[in-house]
Amino acid sequence: MATKKIKVGIVGGTGYTGVELLRLLAIHPDVALTAITSRGEAGMPVADMFPSLRGFVDLAFTDPASANLSDCDVVFFATPHGVAMSQAQTLLDAGVKVIDLAADFRLQDTAVFEQWYKMPHSCPNILSQAVYGIPELYREKIKSAQVIGNPGCYPTTVLLGLAPLIEQGLIDFSAPIIADSKSGVSGAGRKAEVATLFAEASDTMKAYGIAGHRHHPEIHAQLTQLAGANLQFIFVPHLIPMIRGMLSTIYVKLSAKAAAVDLQSLYQQRYQNEGFVDVMPAGSLPETRSVRGSNMIRIALHPQPQTGYLTLVVVQDNLVKGAAGQAVQNMNIMFGLAEATGLGVVPLLP
Amino acid sequence: MATKKIKVGIVGGTGYTGVELLRLLAIHPDVALTAITSRGEAGMPVADMFPSLRGFVDLAFTDPASANLSDCDVVFFATPHGVAMSQAQTLLDAGVKVIDLAADFRLQDTAVFEQWYKMPHSCPNILSQAVYGIPELYREKIKSAQVIGNPGCYPTTVLLGLAPLIEQGLIDFSAPIIADSKSGVSGAGRKAEVATLFAEASDTMKAYGIAGHRHHPEIHAQLTQLAGANLQFIFVPHLIPMIRGMLSTIYVKLSAKAAAVDLQSLYQQRYQNEGFVDVMPAGSLPETRSVRGSNMIRIALHPQPQTGYLTLVVVQDNLVKGAAGQAVQNMNIMFGLAEATGLGVVPLLP
Amino acid sequence: MATKKIKVGIVGGTGYTGVELLRLLAIHPDVALTAITSRGEAGMPVADMFPSLRGFVDLAFTDPASANLSDCDVVFFATPHGVAMSQAQTLLDAGVKVIDLAADFRLQDTAVFEQWYKMPHSCPNILSQAVYGIPELYREKIKSAQVIGNPGCYPTTVLLGLAPLIEQGLIDFSAPIIADSKSGVSGAGRKAEVATLFAEASDTMKAYGIAGHRHHPEIHAQLTQLAGANLQFIFVPHLIPMIRGMLSTIYVKLSAKAAAVDLQSLYQQRYQNEGFVDVMPAGSLPETRSVRGSNMIRIALHPQPQTGYLTLVVVQDNLVKGAAGQAVQNMNIMFGLAEATGLGVVPLLP
Amino acid sequence: MATKKIKVGIVGGTGYTGVELLRLLAIHPDVALTAITSRGEAGMPVADMFPSLRGFVDLAFTDPASANLSDCDVVFFATPHGVAMSQAQTLLDAGVKVIDLAADFRLQDTAVFEQWYKMPHSCPNILSQAVYGIPELYREKIKSAQVIGNPGCYPTTVLLGLAPLIEQGLIDFSAPIIADSKSGVSGAGRKAEVATLFAEASDTMKAYGIAGHRHHPEIHAQLTQLAGANLQFIFVPHLIPMIRGMLSTIYVKLSAKAAAVDLQSLYQQRYQNEGFVDVMPAGSLPETRSVRGSNMIRIALHPQPQTGYLTLVVVQDNLVKGAAGQAVQNMNIMFGLAEATGLGVVPLLP
Repeated sequence: MATKKIKVGIVGGTGYTGVELLRLLAIHPDVALTAITSRGEAGMPVADMFPSLRGFVDLAFTDPASANLSDCDVVFFATPHGVAMSQAQTLLDAGVKVIDLAADFRLQDTAVFEQWYKMPHSCPNILSQAVYGIPELYREKIKSAQVIGNPGCYPTTVLLGLAPLIEQGLIDFSAPIIADSKSGVSGAGRKAEVATLFAEASDTMKAYGIAGHRHHPEIHAQLTQLAGANLQFIFVPHLIPMIRGMLSTIYVKLSAKAAAVDLQSLYQQRYQNEGFVDVMPAGSLPETRSVRGSNMIRIALHPQPQTGYLTLVVVQDNLVKGAAGQAVQNMNIMFGLAEATGLGVVPLLP
Repeated sequence: MATKKIKVGIVGGTGYTGVELLRLLAIHPDVALTAITSRGEAGMPVADMFPSLRGFVDLAFTDPASANLSDCDVVFFATPHGVAMSQAQTLLDAGVKVIDLAADFRLQDTAVFEQWYKMPHSCPNILSQAVYGIPELYREKIKSAQVIGNPGCYPTTVLLGLAPLIEQGLIDFSAPIIADSKSGVSGAGRKAEVATLFAEASDTMKAYGIAGHRHHPEIHAQLTQLAGANLQFIFVPHLIPMIRGMLSTIYVKLSAKAAAVDLQSLYQQRYQNEGFVDVMPAGSLPETRSVRGSNMIRIALHPQPQTGYLTLVVVQDNLVKGAAGQAVQNMNIMFGLAEATGLGVVPLLP
Repeated sequence: MATKKIKVGIVGGTGYTGVELLRLLAIHPDVALTAITSRGEAGMPVADMFPSLRGFVDLAFTDPASANLSDCDVVFFATPHGVAMSQAQTLLDAGVKVIDLAADFRLQDTAVFEQWYKMPHSCPNILSQAVYGIPELYREKIKSAQVIGNPGCYPTTVLLGLAPLIEQGLIDFSAPIIADSKSGVSGAGRKAEVATLFAEASDTMKAYGIAGHRHHPEIHAQLTQLAGANLQFIFVPHLIPMIRGMLSTIYVKLSAKAAAVDLQSLYQQRYQNEGFVDVMPAGSLPETRSVRGSNMIRIALHPQPQTGYLTLVVVQDNLVKGAAGQAVQNMNIMFGLAEATGLGVVPLLP
Repeated sequence: MATKKIKVGIVGGTGYTGVELLRLLAIHPDVALTAITSRGEAGMPVADMFPSLRGFVDLAFTDPASANLSDCDVVFFATPHGVAMSQAQTLLDAGVKVIDLAADFRLQDTAVFEQWYKMPHSCPNILSQAVYGIPELYREKIKSAQVIGNPGCYPTTVLLGLAPLIEQGLIDFSAPIIADSKSGVSGAGRKAEVATLFAEASDTMKAYGIAGHRHHPEIHAQLTQLAGANLQFIFVPHLIPMIRGMLSTIYVKLSAKAAAVDLQSLYQQRYQNEGFVDVMPAGSLPETRSVRGSNMIRIALHPQPQTGYLTLVVVQDNLVKGAAGQAVQNMNIMFGLAEATGLGVVPLLP
């Protein structure tokens, strides 16, 4: 291809979203990986830490201080919360686009951000221009965005699961929306912690974050914006002994006018042109492995006529559509590429 | 101890509830294992099939036809649905008590039984005297019962989770009760099936039975009976890549009068004398492994004040409190033993 | 690309090697999937059985009887042993190349075949022309082969692990070669069996086949042929609770002349032009996940100077380099394509 | 029972061997748990950290400085290497017996200790009186021991696997003994480390420590002592994605006189009075789960007549017979109790 390649930098390449970006970008036909930073591992070849990348990534980690990120066309932040907002202005000034996989640009309400992330928001002016990066909801804005707040993993499942209903006014908000979500352990990150050791987290499961999880305000804000109305939202995440994979079971009370709507058709039409949203046949029970390693999200509808509720089952790979894959999808849109470029991986099953 | 031992027979000893009964009864101080039947494995020493029992169980499987079950004091049926009801009358006539771990004696409404289990109920007269075997709800009846319908695994979690609320009239039945339940794979039984192969069921998860699971009518009937009122119940079970363990996350709308009630105290008082129900401290997030191998069930309360809902998290070992352990607990009650006899196993962690 | 696509048929598409072929071939740029047969599932869309393939494979399974396999350019057999040899002649007569992923064309000695596979070999004349499909050993023959006996998973690890030593005469055959191999459970196939249920095979491991495993004679025959000498071979496979992945730890006594050889360099030179053999840096400890989903095999050398032994660690994905990936690699060679075509998947980590 | 209970202290109760000691001792009929120390968690109820112990252990962790360990009858050290030797003299002076589950008292050669553990040995005089705690080999010495060096997990499998051969002079030491060992991840301890995270260590496996593992000199010293001869020993441990469980596959060249020996009988006789060593029937393939949670070790013999080698398969629970269970077994012997007291747990299967 004659096109000039997109020069890509990754800040924080040693976590799971970082290595997942590398897996995807290493074979992206229009990308030239230019710099991968890590404070702790500067000088180490990336493929020494992740032998899966031997032969695919020749770069070494560079120290953030010496990495010339301003030469990039786009920089991904696969870092803890707070890093992207400290570096965004410099990059933007140099004409570099920013895609943050942490939470710095997800919550427009800085008070809410500060409450949940325990730090002041340092660049509300950038935040106000940032676009929440779910292409299926905000594609037009993403096209011209300079800064993307790449969504949390849980929010992607709940928002794409509910959007068609909300857009058509089919939810009865007198009852809370309930999302009972389950995540593989990679969602907790590549951090040395006892709670996510193999011997602690395998052959067992638990709920967590019931009293308050950072994705609750993110989902709530997005749902409220989509609905243009107040609503109540109960969110209970669970930790499941699998590496990747996320499944949200969503319970929602339908409004009176939903009775006249063929919901299965509604979803199929809403997402018919979306390459990464798969509305499953009625009655389907999607498994998380059906999207392992891929950017696909699958949605199945299960109406419960006796109760007036609809149960939705949504699955994705938390590291792909829930993180790095969606980030690449956003990049493709921002640079005018075909949206699926580099994202054609077939899910790994078994 | 000078007491004469209880002579125990087990019909169908090759499945997971069967071997779990053996694990528990092999060291029960008041039990003499007398016969373990298996049509397919007659003649094989039990410990050849389950080497974990070498040195603990010396019996061989016997053919059901030649097993002299009438000499037993009690017979456990760890069989497919339908077997217990075909043999119960003969045993009862011989003065043998019956504890069925399948569904034959769980549903008092035979029409419902026939709808879900696709077979006619062959002994409604025995069914009408059978007691639903949750000691914490029906202990007095169990004491004098000749036949126990040992509950399903999911129902035990939901019923013990909700009983204190229902008994006190604290649920607003205008909203459906929602139980989002998760089970380890052993719940599917020890049957040669592709869907539960290691390579199919590990590192993935799914919902199943949304359109209709046999435990739905069982739970619904019991809830209705406890409540003395009609109510709506949504039940979504999920298959989780762990061997044992069950966690139910229950979402329930509280009634107006609940606002004045200290729910945590209510639960602690309700279960204060129950040796196998552990009301966790407020805010707890119990893991399934905290009960691995034990008969304990743990309940944690998570009120969601903004929505008027209460979220309950209930964990048990599906093969113990959810099956074989509860069956032994019932046996202990039926024979006047201390209820915890033989059930003092410390959960295996990690 | 202007090249005409290769028309590919797959016989037996419902097992793990079958679905793995589909995963690889679905995005192979030079392949047109033409027919996928299954006796039991004829008529079912492939993507209904394997939702991971939704959007990638539009074919339905066809009955073997009605599949027009003679129109294909190549047919893969992902079937039980014995099927390929019953159909090979017809296909060859029609000018169709055959790649058998079962054992029909692996063992040149039909007496040995019959001893281990308990069936007569029905086409020794085809067998005698069949090529054992390890490209790194037999590439030239594969180029012109009409029939490939695709190697067993274990043999690929042992043979590529030992070939450089044998070729240079560096093994002391007075001691047996010992291969202690470990395989993920997918190696047992997608068959309904109790022993490989999740609840039987997870959180545990075992050795198996010590008294005799079908890959023993296959490895022994190949080693003997490479060495041009008699040798002794001890092989103990183990079943490991992981879906994919194979690791062989090989213990070999070095000959006197090995003392003067830089073994690390020897291996690096031997495999320097091999795109799918990765000789790891000295002292490396490769993990099976470093090749998950990819056709790469990694080899690490660990000399044990005090004993005169060399320990080799070899890892591959048993379904890719150990089966379907190597089969595609063979196909690429047979049709004059670049050997890596369609095999550029980055391993999935984590 | 009228006997006075043994007052037990545990130093370092927050690791896996610590909680395993608690699991076993909590229901030991002759033990009174007196103190459990933890520098980091002083004041926290033990059952808050390990909810599996709710209702079984009422103690809180105490600071090592304030714990009155001198009042105990025996103190177990479930600590990092080096702690026991710093405190042993004080305890011994107070008449307290010491059982160290770390390595301080395993290696009689302090130079070897210092080479492998990178610290000087601070009390060689105590070391010289310490007994290596494998009851099946050193029971008489254990009876009167004041200090036990509880063996490493791997050494227990290799030594009990080989002892009968060595005692009878049936090994040809001209070839190295090879132990290819596999361990569950709990063997790495309850430490916050990236390498043993669930997302790093599940669905994968690797060899480790080939260049040198601390159990190599321990096994080598013990083998040499048993044999009264020099011998060569190759040891390759592997990390397996299971919580508990250890399997050693041992390859040994038999001496000429072994040809006349019925090895199966030899093993059965050697261990016939050993309650925790189970010689499996000829040809058995024991699974690690067959000993999950129990103190049993199982050994299976697989002669390989063509090669003159014997392959042994040995399984144990690394945390029980490989650590805490063997420590309790030693305690029972030291205090004149029946050796199996408190160790009658039936393995948990499935």
